[in-house]
Amino acid sequence: MNNKLTLGIFGFGVVGQGLYDIIKTKNLNLAIKKFVIKHPEKKRSLPAELFTTDAKAVLNDPEINTVVELIDDAAAAFDIVAAALKAGKNVVSANKKMIATHLKELVDIQHQHGTSLLYEGAVCGSIPIIRNLEEYYDNELLHSISGIFNGSSNYILSKIFNDNLAYDTALRQAQDLGFAETDPTLDVGGFDAKFKLAIVASHAYGLYIAPENILNIGIDKLSTSDIQFANEKNLKIKLVPTAREINDKDVILYVLPKLVSAENILYNVENEYNGVLVKAAFADEQFFYGKGAGGHPTGSAVLSDIAALRYGYRYEYKKHIDAGSLGYSTDWEITVYLRYDDEKIIEKLEFTSISERYYAQDFKYVIGKISLAKIFENRDAINRNGVFIAEIG
Amino acid sequence: MNNKLTLGIFGFGVVGQGLYDIIKTKNLNLAIKKFVIKHPEKKRSLPAELFTTDAKAVLNDPEINTVVELIDDAAAAFDIVAAALKAGKNVVSANKKMIATHLKELVDIQHQHGTSLLYEGAVCGSIPIIRNLEEYYDNELLHSISGIFNGSSNYILSKIFNDNLAYDTALRQAQDLGFAETDPTLDVGGFDAKFKLAIVASHAYGLYIAPENILNIGIDKLSTSDIQFANEKNLKIKLVPTAREINDKDVILYVLPKLVSAENILYNVENEYNGVLVKAAFADEQFFYGKGAGGHPTGSAVLSDIAALRYGYRYEYKKHIDAGSLGYSTDWEITVYLRYDDEKIIEKLEFTSISERYYAQDFKYVIGKISLAKIFENRDAINRNGVFIAEIG
Repeated sequence: MNNKLTLGIFGFGVVGQGLYDIIKTKNLNLAIKKFVIKHPEKKRSLPAELFTTDAKAVLNDPEINTVVELIDDAAAAFDIVAAALKAGKNVVSANKKMIATHLKELVDIQHQHGTSLLYEGAVCGSIPIIRNLEEYYDNELLHSISGIFNGSSNYILSKIFNDNLAYDTALRQAQDLGFAETDPTLDVGGFDAKFKLAIVASHAYGLYIAPENILNIGIDKLSTSDIQFANEKNLKIKLVPTAREINDKDVILYVLPKLVSAENILYNVENEYNGVLVKAAFADEQFFYGKGAGGHPTGSAVLSDIAALRYGYRYEYKKHIDAGSLGYSTDWEITVYLRYDDEKIIEKLEFTSISERYYAQDFKYVIGKISLAKIFENRDAINRNGVFIAEIG
Repeated sequence: MNNKLTLGIFGFGVVGQGLYDIIKTKNLNLAIKKFVIKHPEKKRSLPAELFTTDAKAVLNDPEINTVVELIDDAAAAFDIVAAALKAGKNVVSANKKMIATHLKELVDIQHQHGTSLLYEGAVCGSIPIIRNLEEYYDNELLHSISGIFNGSSNYILSKIFNDNLAYDTALRQAQDLGFAETDPTLDVGGFDAKFKLAIVASHAYGLYIAPENILNIGIDKLSTSDIQFANEKNLKIKLVPTAREINDKDVILYVLPKLVSAENILYNVENEYNGVLVKAAFADEQFFYGKGAGGHPTGSAVLSDIAALRYGYRYEYKKHIDAGSLGYSTDWEITVYLRYDDEKIIEKLEFTSISERYYAQDFKYVIGKISLAKIFENRDAINRNGVFIAEIG
C-alpha cells in the first residue's frame, strides 16, 4: 500500500519552506497542489498558481487527500484540522498549542471519520519521540519522561551559563537568530514546553490533561544571584518538563527550571538542541537528542509523518483505550531552590521541610521540600520579579 | 489486527529470562508455549514442561506462529531462523553476528515465504535504531551513522579514562560484571560493533556488505603511552563504528578506535551505555542513547519486536529496492594517530601526508592521512602488539 498523496498546505513560513525544500529533493509519491496563505501581497519564491488565500480551495478539493497545517494561530489551526479530518482528509500538523489544547476532541474526530492526524513535528522538532512512544515503548512501563523541549529558552540558558551573557542580551541574541519570538513568553515562560509535555504525556500514559491544569514556571525571572548560586555549585539551570508515574495510579506533570549537575545528561544539551529522557522499567534510560526547532528539522519530522500517511499510518492511542486506570495528580513533593524578596511567600507555600536558608540584604533563598499542589496554587505569587524557583536533583 | 501470538523461544539465558520477566508483568495477547534449551540438566526457575531440547518441537508445531531466537551460536541460530521463516513463522532474533552474516539470504527467505524477521535487539540493545531507520528516516538523506555500539569495550575505556585503571584490570572488571565474554575478542576487537554496523548500514543505505569486507580494529592493543597521549590532550579514546555516504554513489564502513574531544557527543557516553549518532540533511544531528546490553534492555527490544508482530509489522527494506545506486567503497582518506614499533609499517601504510612525528626510545607515533583501503590491506600488520591506531577528528 503506497497511496499517492496530493497535498494542501496551510502556511508557507519557515517550516513550510523547509518542507518544500525537502520534498523537491526526493522522488516521493506525492505532489503539493496548493498552499493556503494569509498575505497574498508577499513576494513568494514559487509560481503564483500554487498559492491561494481561500481555505475552501483545499478543504473542498476532493483531489487533495492530505492536509498539512503549519500556521501559528492555534484557534484557526484547530478549525482547519477539524474540518479537514471531517472531510475525510488525513492531516499532519506541527502546532503544539492547538494539539495539546484539543487533543481529546481531535482523537474523537479521527475515530468518527476514520482519518489520521499525525504531529511528530509538534514535539521537539526532528526527535521522533511520539512515534517511539506509540510504536516502540507501547508495552513498556514508563517511569518518567523529561528533558529539554524548548530550544529558545535553552539557547538563552546556554549563553548565560557558558558565555556569561546577561539574560536580556541572551534573549536578544536568540531573537536575532530567529529562535525566539518577539513576545518570548511562550518560550521562556514554559508554555511551549508545557504543550509538548501534555502531548507526550498523552502518548506515554494515555491521559488527556488540559494545559491550564499543568504547572509551568519559566526562566524569565532568573537573576544574577540565581546564576551565581548555580555557578558556585557547578550547576546549570535548565528548563525541564517532567512527566512521572509516581505510583501505579498517578502521574504528575510540571514544567520548572531545574538545577542540574554535570552527571545529568541534560547538562550537556546546549543551545537550540532538545533532549528527551525516557526512563523505563526494562529499556532503562533512553535519551533522544536533536534539533528542536528550525525549518529543516521540523520539516523533516513533518515529512516523516506525510510519508507514513502513504502507508496508512495512524496513532493507535492504545494507552487511552487499554489503561484508563491512571489519573493526574499534583500530590507530590519536590525539592526546590526558592529565591524570594518577601517572607510572606515562604509561609504561603507551606514548605514541608527546609534544609537551607540564606539571608543577605539583596539575596535571600531557601532550599526545601514543597508539594506540587502548593506551587500550582501559588503560581502567580511565584511567577513575578523578586522570586525564582528551580527544582533540585 | 491484533493476532494472538504463540511463542517458541530458543535459549533461556540472560535475554530469555529478561524477556520472560517482562512478558509476565504485562497483559499482552501472547503466550510462551516452549523454550528450546541445550542443557536439560540445568535447574530452571519455570515448570519443566515449558522446556525441551528438541528444535522440532517448536519448528513443527503449527500452533507456534512466532519464534524468538536468543542463542549464542550464530551458525545454529541461522539454521533455526531460516527453518522457522520457511515454515511460515515470524521470527525475532537478537543475534547480530548471524544477521550481519546472512542478511541478504534472510531477506530473500522473508520475501519468498511472506514471513517477517525483526531484530532490533541485535543492534545496541534498547536503542530503537533499526525501527527509526526503517520508519522514520526512510526519506532522509543520511550523511552518516556512527556511535558507540559495544558496551563491553566502552565500559573498559571508561574505566581507563575516568578511573585510571589499567587495560587488563578494566577488562577483568567488565568480565566480572558480565559485560564481557571470557574470550573478549568479539567485543574489544571491534567484531561485535562491526556486525551491528553492517546491519545499520543495510537499513540506512540499502547495502549488503559481508562483515569480512569491513575494516575492524579494536582497543586491545591500547598501551599506557596511548592513554597518556590522549589524556595530555584532554581526549578520550572510544571504539567507533562509522557508516558514511561520501558522495552520491559511495558509502564507507569501518570500525576504529577514535580520539574524541569533549565537544563530541560520544565523549560523554560512558560505561555499558551505547549511543548512535545520525547525521541527516534535514533532521540534522540526531542522537540516540541507552543501555546497549543486558537482559532487560535487550529483552525490551525483543519484546517491542514481538509486539509489533501482533500487528503484522515487517521491515520493508525499501532502500534495497528503491536505491540500488549506492556502492561500497574503501577509497577514502582519514586522519589517524598511529603508535608503532618498527618504521616498516609507516612505509607499508603509504601515508598520503604526515603532520606530526614523535620519537622516543619506547614511544613513537605519527599523525597523518591515510586511505581506508591501505589500513584494510595492512590490518594484520596493524593489529598486533607494538602498534595502535586511532582515528582523529
